[in-house]
Amino acid sequence: MDGNRFIGYALGQRCVTLGHGRAEVVEAAARALRDGTNFNRPSVLEGEVAEALLDLVPGAEMAKFTKDGSTANTAAVKLARAATGKRVVGLCADHPFFSYDDWAMGITPLDAGIPAENVSLTDTFRFNDLASVDALFDRHPGDVACLMLEPCRPDADPEPGFLEGLRERCTRHGAVLVFDEMTTGFRFHLGGGQALFGVTPDLSTFGKAMGNGIAISAMVGPRSLMDLGGLTTTEARVFLLSTTHGAESPGLAAAREVIRIYREEGVVERLAATGERLRALVQQAIDASGVGSAVDVRGRPQGLLFGNRDPQGAPSQAYRTLFLQELIRGGVLAPSFLVTNAHTEADLLRTAEAVSGALTVYRRALDEGVDGLLEGPPSKTVYRRHN
Amino acid sequence: MDGNRFIGYALGQRCVTLGHGRAEVVEAAARALRDGTNFNRPSVLEGEVAEALLDLVPGAEMAKFTKDGSTANTAAVKLARAATGKRVVGLCADHPFFSYDDWAMGITPLDAGIPAENVSLTDTFRFNDLASVDALFDRHPGDVACLMLEPCRPDADPEPGFLEGLRERCTRHGAVLVFDEMTTGFRFHLGGGQALFGVTPDLSTFGKAMGNGIAISAMVGPRSLMDLGGLTTTEARVFLLSTTHGAESPGLAAAREVIRIYREEGVVERLAATGERLRALVQQAIDASGVGSAVDVRGRPQGLLFGNRDPQGAPSQAYRTLFLQELIRGGVLAPSFLVTNAHTEADLLRTAEAVSGALTVYRRALDEGVDGLLEGPPSKTVYRRHN
Repeated sequence: MDGNRFIGYALGQRCVTLGHGRAEVVEAAARALRDGTNFNRPSVLEGEVAEALLDLVPGAEMAKFTKDGSTANTAAVKLARAATGKRVVGLCADHPFFSYDDWAMGITPLDAGIPAENVSLTDTFRFNDLASVDALFDRHPGDVACLMLEPCRPDADPEPGFLEGLRERCTRHGAVLVFDEMTTGFRFHLGGGQALFGVTPDLSTFGKAMGNGIAISAMVGPRSLMDLGGLTTTEARVFLLSTTHGAESPGLAAAREVIRIYREEGVVERLAATGERLRALVQQAIDASGVGSAVDVRGRPQGLLFGNRDPQGAPSQAYRTLFLQELIRGGVLAPSFLVTNAHTEADLLRTAEAVSGALTVYRRALDEGVDGLLEGPPSKTVYRRHN
Repeated sequence: MDGNRFIGYALGQRCVTLGHGRAEVVEAAARALRDGTNFNRPSVLEGEVAEALLDLVPGAEMAKFTKDGSTANTAAVKLARAATGKRVVGLCADHPFFSYDDWAMGITPLDAGIPAENVSLTDTFRFNDLASVDALFDRHPGDVACLMLEPCRPDADPEPGFLEGLRERCTRHGAVLVFDEMTTGFRFHLGGGQALFGVTPDLSTFGKAMGNGIAISAMVGPRSLMDLGGLTTTEARVFLLSTTHGAESPGLAAAREVIRIYREEGVVERLAATGERLRALVQQAIDASGVGSAVDVRGRPQGLLFGNRDPQGAPSQAYRTLFLQELIRGGVLAPSFLVTNAHTEADLLRTAEAVSGALTVYRRALDEGVDGLLEGPPSKTVYRRHN
């Protein structure tokens, strides 16, 4: 095969936890392609995948499928508004991304093209800060439709009582609690953060690794809410995720196979073991390199992150870019250290070698400055207003 | 094979113009599945499909891919607002669907869960009514960001001068003209309605048949607009269609193969010939049935529609449901008569037989009433507030 070979930890926007092109998933999707992809009406396959997914998420009774996480989260907001008759969406300000849609993107610096009207009903609270949640409810008396957050981040768990406090407040104020499980589901626990921390939201959204890189996402919840988008409710109907391709069969077939493999191979536990091994190897390399605390590795083993600091100890995109550049030179693509079920011990050892090589250059940069070592401009953060 | 066999004209929400499971498209998508579906960065394939699509749409210089039409149209609105600094979206009130998102769905009866704020910047104009367009611009002086419409419907062409008048007014008022080509592209003309009628919009969106049932859609436009979502602009950046799965390789590989087949097999012309043949057969059956004008077949040959009326001549969901019921009994699934490249003369003849059978029952119903003949409740229209 021509071209370059890399050990990858980017995983197709965090989707490919079973490794790129996992054979059973690919073949299941390919079979579905041959049998036709879109039938105008729900297919038996759609029902089967709904049941398989709902088996993993105890509080949920119905599922609706779509292609991307943004769409699922936007649908959750609409359903919450319809169910409560309230308007305000409370977003966790410490979580990076909920939707490309105006109601979510409008509170970031990337708000070009978003009229103030479309974000006027969005407000924020802070993770692990129930006082900020109370303040949000106080600012919009009787008008909070839902709170939305990730139940945890790779490097930030909820403090004891935080999710429970959210649950209690949502129930008391008549707001819908939504967990975005895009990166927690199929990674930290098979049932998502809600299973990991034992707090049941009203609605939750899954995607990313659910299709191992094949497009599928879902919103799940209790019948009492989901039925508002159905054909039996006597309430006003909600136009809920009726998309041309939401029930496309290859994504559904892939998800069914992914769920089977996760169950049979104990994927979540294997990801944890692989991640812990990689953490140890990377930490060893850091300790041996003399970079001190300028480079660190942290987070849940299935979602390892690393940090890069300059000689003054400040987070630095230039130093991050140097680290990425030298990892690439060593044959490793790693915007973070997300492991898959396909990474072998040999892959991890070669990764550790590449990390050691990168840290040698990093050590020099801490002394000499980064400019002479960088081969291109520093990479930039996503949430910048200008290029 | 177990189960029932039907001749289908539903085409997976109007997508499957080459027939379900067209082999070359399926195999191209399956190969892409095996090579990995998502790479965090744009792939060579994405660039190739962008070039193939832009070859079909003369006025467009850049393309961005996503999964569903709603997402593409919502992105066009955001880009128009960013480019113009204006806020109001003018939608064609005579066209049925632009997006599941609030800005579009909020003007239909299906507005549950949509706060008034989110649709306060949407206004409407009428198809083939330039006075209504002028009135729209007058209601929002200097604040119309874009007009969006389908360049034609299957049974409604623009009158001479209408699209040209829209073009002139958008240019004069500094608004962006957006053509939704989801059902016109890859059906009425390979370059969409803009090529058919010779009027170039600023932005246009394609999807549906572009993947023959595999999820893919696109927004295309000139560099001057599209660059606002890119990495070189000096203006404020637009977060434009950056989705997890927008560049998923099976959809791109499918689109490349669909474009090749459309060019090599002259699919648009073949669809027209097949549709004209079916129209003649159905019209023959109607003429022979004695139902008079209670059933009609109409529209462009690649997008044939039928109408069902009650004995008083009013459009009737009950009579429509009876017609559908009897077509199904005859082995035909036809919410409309959308033909594919896969329908054979034998399929069309069997369809005409089923239509004749259905019309015999329809003729009885015109005399006796529909209630005793319907086996279930009448089907309902989409845009109803309650079930």
